[in-house]
Amino acid sequence: MTDRPHVVIVGGGFAGLEAAKKLGRMPVRVTMVDRANHHTFQPLLYQVATAALNAGEIAKPIRSVLRRYPNLSVLLGNVTRVDVAARSLELADGAVVHYDYLILAPGVRHSYFTRPEWEALAPGLKTIEDALEIRRRVLLAFERAERSESSDERHRLLTFVVVGGGPTGVEVAGAIAEIRRYALARDFRHIDPRDATVLLLEGGPRVMPSYPAELSQKAKESLRRLGVDVRTDSMVTSLEPGAVISAGWTIPTETVVWAAGNAASPLLQTLGVPLDGAGRPIVEADCSIPGHREVFVLGDAAAFRHDPKYPVVLPGVAPVAMQQGRYAARAIAADLRKQERIPFKYVDKGQLAVIGRGQGVADIGPFHIAGLLAWLAWIFIHILYLIGFANRIVVMFRWAVSYLTFERGARLITREWKAG
Amino acid sequence: MTDRPHVVIVGGGFAGLEAAKKLGRMPVRVTMVDRANHHTFQPLLYQVATAALNAGEIAKPIRSVLRRYPNLSVLLGNVTRVDVAARSLELADGAVVHYDYLILAPGVRHSYFTRPEWEALAPGLKTIEDALEIRRRVLLAFERAERSESSDERHRLLTFVVVGGGPTGVEVAGAIAEIRRYALARDFRHIDPRDATVLLLEGGPRVMPSYPAELSQKAKESLRRLGVDVRTDSMVTSLEPGAVISAGWTIPTETVVWAAGNAASPLLQTLGVPLDGAGRPIVEADCSIPGHREVFVLGDAAAFRHDPKYPVVLPGVAPVAMQQGRYAARAIAADLRKQERIPFKYVDKGQLAVIGRGQGVADIGPFHIAGLLAWLAWIFIHILYLIGFANRIVVMFRWAVSYLTFERGARLITREWKAG
Repeated sequence: MTDRPHVVIVGGGFAGLEAAKKLGRMPVRVTMVDRANHHTFQPLLYQVATAALNAGEIAKPIRSVLRRYPNLSVLLGNVTRVDVAARSLELADGAVVHYDYLILAPGVRHSYFTRPEWEALAPGLKTIEDALEIRRRVLLAFERAERSESSDERHRLLTFVVVGGGPTGVEVAGAIAEIRRYALARDFRHIDPRDATVLLLEGGPRVMPSYPAELSQKAKESLRRLGVDVRTDSMVTSLEPGAVISAGWTIPTETVVWAAGNAASPLLQTLGVPLDGAGRPIVEADCSIPGHREVFVLGDAAAFRHDPKYPVVLPGVAPVAMQQGRYAARAIAADLRKQERIPFKYVDKGQLAVIGRGQGVADIGPFHIAGLLAWLAWIFIHILYLIGFANRIVVMFRWAVSYLTFERGARLITREWKAG
Repeated sequence: MTDRPHVVIVGGGFAGLEAAKKLGRMPVRVTMVDRANHHTFQPLLYQVATAALNAGEIAKPIRSVLRRYPNLSVLLGNVTRVDVAARSLELADGAVVHYDYLILAPGVRHSYFTRPEWEALAPGLKTIEDALEIRRRVLLAFERAERSESSDERHRLLTFVVVGGGPTGVEVAGAIAEIRRYALARDFRHIDPRDATVLLLEGGPRVMPSYPAELSQKAKESLRRLGVDVRTDSMVTSLEPGAVISAGWTIPTETVVWAAGNAASPLLQTLGVPLDGAGRPIVEADCSIPGHREVFVLGDAAAFRHDPKYPVVLPGVAPVAMQQGRYAARAIAADLRKQERIPFKYVDKGQLAVIGRGQGVADIGPFHIAGLLAWLAWIFIHILYLIGFANRIVVMFRWAVSYLTFERGARLITREWKAG
């Protein structure tokens, strides 16, 4: 088995897992490297951040997902450098891993453009740790407001600002608006959580810019019905402790969630190939990097510009990543059989988002749907793709309980044990 | 309502919640203060630490548990001092709360006797944060062993030491032994998790010293069948990074769990009343402190010495805490009606512990039971007393899945988001 080609996959997200599952049945050796021990179902992260689900309910150990493939091993490790000439990777602890094929799918982190110091003031939402930190901040703000003697401080604590009007920002703002109206409504004595202000700041002219204009409008109306103050054309010009400054407004707040921009992993800079403005390698039609057919970059870490519908870049969504993961495995299979690689083609099945109880938007081919039907479609698709049988059952059960009781089942504030 | 007596409860554990529920129906004002926003079902903490359950599944916000009582408010806060003369409490942020009655039920922390520096090397298991830290260490040890090139390091990483042979130590050791044999067995390529060593070190002559000797023996046999190396009369004399020294042995290990001793909250020292060796106030027959009938100390924070069966101290278990919580509320009710307080009497229904799949021990009055029946009784009682309808359903479901598949549903390593 050691003379089989060695395929190294970096990242156990949607792209990496799909590639691994296909490669697990091929005559290759596979090594999967990830910084986390678990795959995270990112589309439901905002539900962990807003106390609807527990962290473990949307995650599963990469090891146990890939257990059935004997040609595949999983390493917990942080890749710091790729040496494309030597065909090797370096890990943070100094270990070196050689590859014949490399599949890079490290995902993205939120980006603060030229202001990295904003991260401490406004966490983003990409990992389980991010989600738990946002949940902690949101729930603690209500707790601190309950104890505050100053009405200015109370107002500041009860103002929640979400920066960025894409699907993540819309989902987070909708969910905070819902918990303050329902789950928390009767739990406090000195404040009324329903008085809390939820602001969604979008720099462009409309929310959900990747959707058709009529669905942007529907989404905005749904948000308004939930009591979210939606402000478009409102770029954030400054973040300070205790305040957001946007379009001339100074908004006193203690809780800011950042959903406004992404940057690719710094690891990709070590490839030495042209990157786009977000730091993503501009890949070939077969998802490989120029000059190195053996190195693939997949998912939202790549700038794929060969789709006529998306000439700038394919969207950073799970279906693109999953299709590219399977594609990369097929391209390697073609190489092994000495066949030609067929260029990658994205089969676009549309996009879906939810705004709150019974409210969703769906953009599926010619169908632009808003409301209950889109919400039901979203539930069905997310349960279907969620990894792990037990997780599917538990998430369905939690959603049913939340729907019936208006409660949220994961209202837990945790921190490092040393702080206890 | 402001002329009603003000009862302040410190601690939302079993004692505090039971007191609150009874006081919530009485003509008093109640304030519940806790450092955490949630009640933790401590008897199942070891299942969070060993990846069987998610943190949120054994916890519920204190606010939502007590929502129905309009005379009761909940504060998130850390009480640092009691001034019994002024009848007031001081919180860490300087706030002062006055009381007419005070119910102190702050619980205990694990204690390292004269060696507080051992805490960083060997975390205990009292809070959700503790459990997540132990889970992180246990799972990371397997991950690091998988990547290690040195056989000495691999041995050290695959040695798990549990210090203390009481119920917590026995349950943790049994659960680690089980996951290494079943849930993790087929997930690694370079190590065999079944080779991992699990050691239980007990300073005294037998494990489960609070149980009848025959059940101690049964528990030891169950542990041995699971492959736990049980060493009695083995006091830990030193803890160092990378090793435990006990009864002359030097045991190289990276993962130590401390279940060997408790100390009461330092808050109790500010009462100015006699404490026992573990820092617990020696309370009167009505659970109040000498000279202050309006101050109760309950649960494992108190040394109650008026029970002929337990002349030294009542055991630090949930039934004692719950009965004392209800008792304190009744004592206050008696005062309000100008009646005499009846001394507290513990109704001892026995004790139960599990060691692993289908293995439990139960000491219930004249019945000393070991095996499947004790295990089933344990499951029934723990589901019955777990707080929250949704938690009961999810925990039952997770146990059923674990039983059928040998899997563990919460194998998540998380840390502070800044570390990501």
